[in-house]
Amino acid sequence: MTRVSIEHVQDAATRIAAVALRTPLLEQPWSTERPLWLKPENLQHIGAFKIRGAYNAIAVLDDARRANGVVAYSSGNHANAVAFAAKTFGIPAVIVMQDSTPRVKVEATAAHGAEIIEVPMAERERVAKDVAEQRGMALIPPFDHPDVIAGQGTIGLEIVEDLPDVDVVLVPVAGGGLASGVGVAVKALRPAAKVIAVEPELAADTAEGLRAGHQVHWTPERRARTIADGLRTEPSALTFAHLRDVIDAAVAVSEGEIRATMRTLATQARLVAEPSGAVACAAAVYRGAELPPGRTVAVVTGGNVDPALLADVLRS
Amino acid sequence: MTRVSIEHVQDAATRIAAVALRTPLLEQPWSTERPLWLKPENLQHIGAFKIRGAYNAIAVLDDARRANGVVAYSSGNHANAVAFAAKTFGIPAVIVMQDSTPRVKVEATAAHGAEIIEVPMAERERVAKDVAEQRGMALIPPFDHPDVIAGQGTIGLEIVEDLPDVDVVLVPVAGGGLASGVGVAVKALRPAAKVIAVEPELAADTAEGLRAGHQVHWTPERRARTIADGLRTEPSALTFAHLRDVIDAAVAVSEGEIRATMRTLATQARLVAEPSGAVACAAAVYRGAELPPGRTVAVVTGGNVDPALLADVLRS
Repeated sequence: MTRVSIEHVQDAATRIAAVALRTPLLEQPWSTERPLWLKPENLQHIGAFKIRGAYNAIAVLDDARRANGVVAYSSGNHANAVAFAAKTFGIPAVIVMQDSTPRVKVEATAAHGAEIIEVPMAERERVAKDVAEQRGMALIPPFDHPDVIAGQGTIGLEIVEDLPDVDVVLVPVAGGGLASGVGVAVKALRPAAKVIAVEPELAADTAEGLRAGHQVHWTPERRARTIADGLRTEPSALTFAHLRDVIDAAVAVSEGEIRATMRTLATQARLVAEPSGAVACAAAVYRGAELPPGRTVAVVTGGNVDPALLADVLRS
Repeated sequence: MTRVSIEHVQDAATRIAAVALRTPLLEQPWSTERPLWLKPENLQHIGAFKIRGAYNAIAVLDDARRANGVVAYSSGNHANAVAFAAKTFGIPAVIVMQDSTPRVKVEATAAHGAEIIEVPMAERERVAKDVAEQRGMALIPPFDHPDVIAGQGTIGLEIVEDLPDVDVVLVPVAGGGLASGVGVAVKALRPAAKVIAVEPELAADTAEGLRAGHQVHWTPERRARTIADGLRTEPSALTFAHLRDVIDAAVAVSEGEIRATMRTLATQARLVAEPSGAVACAAAVYRGAELPPGRTVAVVTGGNVDPALLADVLRS
């Protein structure tokens, strides 16, 4: 199976420079356990890192193919990322969403000019593939593609550029595109650093798989129990192969720790994080004993959270 | 009366580079009224821009004087800034606070190693001056000092560096240190840009003074009505003189607009802003008709907000 290389990530960095924010590393003086920096990907235009992979995957298409437009199936940050990237290129985008998607998410994606097709959950992937074939559009997957992995990997590139002596990088894992890309970049540029995958305890299939040495499948229902709605998917064969190469260990955090860290991020780092976006920082705060020591970076992956949930977390 | 020059601001930028975060400009695609960027000073270590002026004012002291330590009277972000800067230099800091200051703010400043002296509100300034004299410490004022103004002005420097064709800069004004410094920098580097001071309607003394051509005094009680607790002070003679030189216009926003903008910043920009920190952005959103057109930057000055207030704003 082919692997994404550091050169692949570096090429992606050049492509995405015009549209993705080069997020700063934010040192966190409140962290007494370990020296901690945050990589605030919630500050991207669409509020999440997904713009990096989506934009890179669209940018590498040849001009004629790209002009036909792109398709994605997602109701989360990847949908927004593909719609926003397509708008930037001035090409059509079709986003296939499950018909139970909250209106606010449908409208956010439609606001970028994308055509939305709502279908039952089980039909999303098939309908997206049909649209791609019938209209000659390119399907942009959320994680299972080398160009998407390379795009997300630019985060790792930037972390090592800004903190060359980083010791520990904490990155959430679900589909594994982000963790694969960040791992490839960090291991190439700073081999001494440890890359740690973080999951919710309620969706810790990757940790189990890495320990077993082969992928372990949890049912979608089991993975869906976590509040971290961006971390309910599982790796593909492609991303799991990368994770085995580049991830040093996996840790899991509880639902209560995720919520408490959302609160800490708001009050101490003045950042709004969605539950999935708080998971890596939660590991730094609550799982220090399980982590290697040293200068630590946690990726805050996104900040698209229901205001009522954030309010609830702030009051608790 | 002497004026802070652009060279003064540029010197400050060199001094503060090691301790102040060089905040990025965050483009806001949700702003349909006008092209809008935010300057997120809430992401500074202490959660507010005040570190820039406080650190600069301490850095310019000669070594022997600085070694004796520093004194400030404040219960807000300036207190934290002086305490944090003093810790960075390894020198003692005394912060004089009014005895009604919430424990959480006292503890946040004490956590930086500062000695806290709590006195009745009316005695703060006198006690701080007494301590400075008795212990040979330097008093670091919150805004009424050229080195503080120059430090805050580095924000204007960075705005023009990052967006050379900026048309409008929106900056909150109360004591006027920030607005003076930003105005000096922007007017020197990009004379075509308009610098607009923004106030709460309930503390709009500077707008009235600028219209009248001389400072107008509102009582502390009248200014204290606004939720924007960082904007309840009034300019000094020094800052008002600067404001007359560098501010093109002043606009005011309502309490409801401040609260609504705190919500918008959390949901659309994923930033936690305190009420004072939302005021400039509120002008961009709600006072567009009163503003010059064009590429606009709003400074988000700070993000130290009571979690219960933020929760309340998110639910409304």
